[in-house]
Order: sequence, then C-alpha cells, then structure tokens
Amino acid sequence: MQVIHMNKGEGETSYAKNSLLQKKIISVGISMVDAAITNILWEIQPTSMGVADLGCSSGPNSLTVISQIIHVVDTVSHQMGRPVPELRVFLNDLLDNDFNSVFQSLPQLYKQLSNDCSGINEGNCYICGSPGSFYGRLFPSQSLHFVHSSSSLHWLSQVPSGLEATHLNKEKLYISKSSPASVVEAYQQQFQKDFSLFLRSRAHEMVVKGRMVLSFLGRRSPDPSVDEACYHWELLARALMSLALDGLVEKESIDSFNAPYYAPSQEEVEHEVEKEGSFVIHSVEAFEIAWDDGDSSGLKESSGTRVAKTIRAVVELMIENHFHLHAETMDVLFRRYAKIVDDCFSETRLHYTNLLIYLVKKG
Amino acid sequence: MQVIHMNKGEGETSYAKNSLLQKKIISVGISMVDAAITNILWEIQPTSMGVADLGCSSGPNSLTVISQIIHVVDTVSHQMGRPVPELRVFLNDLLDNDFNSVFQSLPQLYKQLSNDCSGINEGNCYICGSPGSFYGRLFPSQSLHFVHSSSSLHWLSQVPSGLEATHLNKEKLYISKSSPASVVEAYQQQFQKDFSLFLRSRAHEMVVKGRMVLSFLGRRSPDPSVDEACYHWELLARALMSLALDGLVEKESIDSFNAPYYAPSQEEVEHEVEKEGSFVIHSVEAFEIAWDDGDSSGLKESSGTRVAKTIRAVVELMIENHFHLHAETMDVLFRRYAKIVDDCFSETRLHYTNLLIYLVKKG
Repeated sequence: MQVIHMNKGEGETSYAKNSLLQKKIISVGISMVDAAITNILWEIQPTSMGVADLGCSSGPNSLTVISQIIHVVDTVSHQMGRPVPELRVFLNDLLDNDFNSVFQSLPQLYKQLSNDCSGINEGNCYICGSPGSFYGRLFPSQSLHFVHSSSSLHWLSQVPSGLEATHLNKEKLYISKSSPASVVEAYQQQFQKDFSLFLRSRAHEMVVKGRMVLSFLGRRSPDPSVDEACYHWELLARALMSLALDGLVEKESIDSFNAPYYAPSQEEVEHEVEKEGSFVIHSVEAFEIAWDDGDSSGLKESSGTRVAKTIRAVVELMIENHFHLHAETMDVLFRRYAKIVDDCFSETRLHYTNLLIYLVKKG
Repeated sequence: MQVIHMNKGEGETSYAKNSLLQKKIISVGISMVDAAITNILWEIQPTSMGVADLGCSSGPNSLTVISQIIHVVDTVSHQMGRPVPELRVFLNDLLDNDFNSVFQSLPQLYKQLSNDCSGINEGNCYICGSPGSFYGRLFPSQSLHFVHSSSSLHWLSQVPSGLEATHLNKEKLYISKSSPASVVEAYQQQFQKDFSLFLRSRAHEMVVKGRMVLSFLGRRSPDPSVDEACYHWELLARALMSLALDGLVEKESIDSFNAPYYAPSQEEVEHEVEKEGSFVIHSVEAFEIAWDDGDSSGLKESSGTRVAKTIRAVVELMIENHFHLHAETMDVLFRRYAKIVDDCFSETRLHYTNLLIYLVKKG
C-alpha cells in the first residue's frame, strides 16, 4: 500500500500553509454540496444522518466542507420546519494523516456552529476520525447519507500494478507522451480497479438515494498523455533530470518512479460508474483551475514559486521516500521546478482540469 | 475545562513507557469485560454492535481492551453459530490525546485480528477515534451496546467548582486530613455532578440491556481523606513543599493547586447510579493494587523510582501547566518524590484501591 500524505506541521513547506489551491477547488464544488444536502433532507428526511469527508487531510481545509454541510443541514431543516437530524460526521484520511491537528481545531468549529446554527448542539452532532484507505470499506453498511471527497481520488491505492520497481517509464514520473503503451495501460487498469472498488465500497455504506460529490484532477481529452493531466509531473521530471545531470540524483531512480496518481477523463469516470452499477450520475462537469490560482496570501512571489510550494507540500514525502534526497537537494529540486514553471508561465498560463461529479445511490 | 493528558511520545518519561500499572488494572477487569460481551451477544443478539473505550489514551494499552472485545465477539459468535455482528468501535479520549499514535498501531491490530479471528474482516469491523470529554454526549442515541473505561473516571471534568484560584487547601494538592470541610465538599459535589452527567450521557447513547464496565481509583473507606485515596497526592505535595523550602516553587502555587481528581467510595458510586436511575448495578468490587505493581520491565529500580515514573507520566503536564517548572526542577521534584515513596515503602507496601463496576442499561 502506497503511503500518500501531505507535508505535516505548520512550517513554510507544510500542506497547512500551501493548500490554497485545494481550498479553491473545494469552493467550486460547494454549491453542488449544498444542493446534494438539500435534496437528501427533502427526499429522505433522515432523523439520523451520516456524512463522510474522504481525504480530509489536515490544515485549514480539513473542516471546511463539514462545516458547510452542518450549516446547510441547520438552515434547510429550519426551512422545512423539522428538527435538525442527529449528525454523524466522519473525517477520513489515511492512517498517517495528522488527525491530532484536525481534532485540535474542533473546538473552534463547535464554537462557530453554536454561534451560527440554532439547531446544532452537543447532543446532535458527533464528529469522529475514521482512519484508513477509501479503496475498501470504511463504514458500517447503509450508514451514510452523504459522501464528499475533494482533491483525493486522483491518488491511486498504489503504484500501478506491474510497474513497481520497473524502469519502463524512462525519465518520467507519470504518463508522458514518450511512455510506452504498457505503462499507460497499467495506469488505466489501476484506475479502473481502484475507482470501481471505491464505488463498490461506498455503495455498501450508503443508503438508497444517498448523495456523493467527488472532485479530483482529471482531463477533458480522451488522451491520457495530454498536458492538462500530466504537465506538472512532466516538469517535475524535467527538474529531477537536471539534478541527475549534476549527479545529485540517479537517473535510474527517476526511471523507476511511478506516481500513484491518475487523472481520468470524464468518459472513463462515467464508464466505471455505469459498470459498477450502484450509482446514477446526476451531473459531471469539468472546470479549469490555474496552477497558480488560490493565492490570497498577498505574497509577492512568482507563479513558479507558488506552484512549486503547492506541489512540494503534496509530493515531497513521496519524492523523499523514493529518492532519499538531502534536505538541501530537495530545496534545489523545487527551486529548479519553480524556475521551469516560471519559464512556461512566461508563454502561457497553465491549468489543471478538475472533474466535479454528483452521484445518487440507486434504489 | 481542565486539560488532562498523559506524557506524549516514546521517551523515558512518556506514558507509553510508563503505563504498566494501568495495564495491570485493565487485566484485572478483563474477565468482567468478557462476561459483559458474552451476555450482550446472547441477550441482544445484535447484527450491528457499537463498542466504545472511553479514555483510551495512547501507548501500549490503548487498543488492549478493544482487541480483547473483538476476540470475544468472534469466539462467542462462533459458539452461538451466528455470524459475527458488524462491529462499530469508538476510541475516545480528550481532544489533545495522541490519536495519531493510536491510529498508527491499528494495522498491527488488524493483522492480529485477521490471524486470530476467522469471523472478523475488512467489511465488518470499523474503528474510529471520537475526541471529546466523556462528561457530556459523545455518540448518537442508542448506538452503543458496550462501554468500557479504565483508569479515567477518577479524573474530574475540572478543578472542583468553587476551588479555582483559591488558597483554601494549604500545602496540599488534593483532599488531605488537614483539608477544610469546604474543600472536601467541593470535591464531593464536583464528583457527583460529573459522574451523574457521565451516566446520563451514556444512558442516551446505550441500547437497553447494554453493558458498561468501569474501573477507576476509589476507596473502601467512607472517609474521603483516607490514605488509600489520597496518599500519592499527599507525598507529591510533600515533595513540592520541599522544593518550596529551597525556593524552587512558590508555596502559594501549592496552596492554589487542586487536582481535578476524585477517588470515590463504593457507596458514593452506587448512590449516583441509583440517583441517576438508568442503570442497574450488576456488580461492584474493590481491589487493591500496589503502587509499584505492573512492573515487568526487568529494570532494577527502587519501588519509589518506579512509582515516581508512573505518576510523572500522568501528572507532569498538569504540574507543568500550574507551576511552570524548568525541566531540571521537574526532574528534582520526581527524584525527591521517588525518595519519599522509597522511605514509605521501607515501612509498608502502599496500595491503591480500584473500583470495578459492571452496569446494565435498564429497559
């Protein structure tokens, strides 16, 4: 099982300090979350409502969606003239996520809720942490009414099966235009296996008419090697190759690294949902987000520097695990990455494509 | 709200390294846990079973009881010829407990369970962390079949109401033979308020015929200032007073410290259970445990040193919070404490009294 986690703590390179892009992505999906919660309350009218955020991570974003959901439940319940249902809230991430820091921000959330939400109190809102991989069962049968996940499902459960410790994907970290077909197929198969397991697991856990809002990196193009899905890895590979030229990294280590990541197309996602069969697709949309978006810190940094910080907070531990770089070499890597990104930005503003999907559990 | 938590990490003074006494106390209660679980399975025959360990802490003891419970559920279900119920397991402690370290030991537990328990699998055993005070609601209504708590309920929710920032309890940290009646009453009232709130909260959360096994420090004597309940605080006060004589601690700080702790008598506990009215007392027993028991480390240390380590791992942060001692002064304090305990042990072996209570939720 691949270990994926964001940079811990509160330091300069921490995820907590460098997750504005993910915040922006969450905010784009919020109106869909609101609609899903409203529909659940009107259609199912639960007296006890199970809600899970999968891949909550830690830092300022970890309680954003949960807070929004609770606010909406309170507001809509009042509009309906019904009591607020008992809320069972599950915060999920991998075992080595910093749940301590998430839990320590709960008092602030409770305080805010008690100010804003007249229907929420100590006796009807229970928040707990559920550690484990969402590629598998996490929750009791038919216990959840709503599942949310943002910026998490583009991570695979592992390096694509068959690619571990191979050197097939020369000089690259992910699918690239130069990748052999076998590499692309291994990625596609791992995505299909993982995503269908994700859907099957949630299908067991969710009630009929339960809703799921998922947002993750993807692509509009059917071509898995298209820039919108791969270019941030492409440029990171370029930065690593420049370290290899200077003897700071073994080229073989680059050849043998394969990111446990996949940015699927809308069609691939739809195909898996239909094949698995438990969910109806209410809507799917794709939106672009600039690599350097999400910045509201007022820092006068180049786009490349901001992008490098965002990427570093997410991939540093993975890179560290594989390449065993010295701290200084890691700094060099991301300075070069920032430079490469700046050079690209001088010609064009680079965008990720994000997929935003709204699913309803079938009867 | 008083912050109570054990020393973190894995170091020499950590709770993880100094919790053998608490382990011993858990082991004394295990046969009662086994009986309670067996009775739940036969009487209620749940298809989904909620289990909570309140005050799980972190370190080697944090999963002991949960592991035992799951093993018993597996064994008894087989004996009954029934499928193992879906297990919903909640690990509770205060918000600043080290849940990260608890979660990181889950893979080892899952591995052990998959070796030992043929009926337990990924799809029927869900473990999550529920941070918060057990003096108040923690779980949804009627969601729990079994509640366990060991070495936690002797901690009050706060310094007894009315004693905060007073200097009534001169030169003492807890009830003492010299304490004025008002101090003793404040402690008793805080215990009554907290323990009845604990019972009322659990009564909402537990199903009819659900079981609760609680173990905590108490006393056989009706006298709240009896040595069995107070002497470890008495000696710690003596060690602090010796620091005051050397100018290392303000005497006023000792006067104003009141441990958020209470060791009730069996009768006091029974009285609160009857008054609250939701539970039948199946059994109550008191047992002694030597202050220096639980040692199986093979270290050749004096009893006093071992006792000082056990106490330090539990109270250091509380002491630190109030007295703001330098690290070296803290070392001096617990060396003097060890010496004082050794002197006592040369005359008699000191014992705690532990209460072990088995309650059944009324219909």
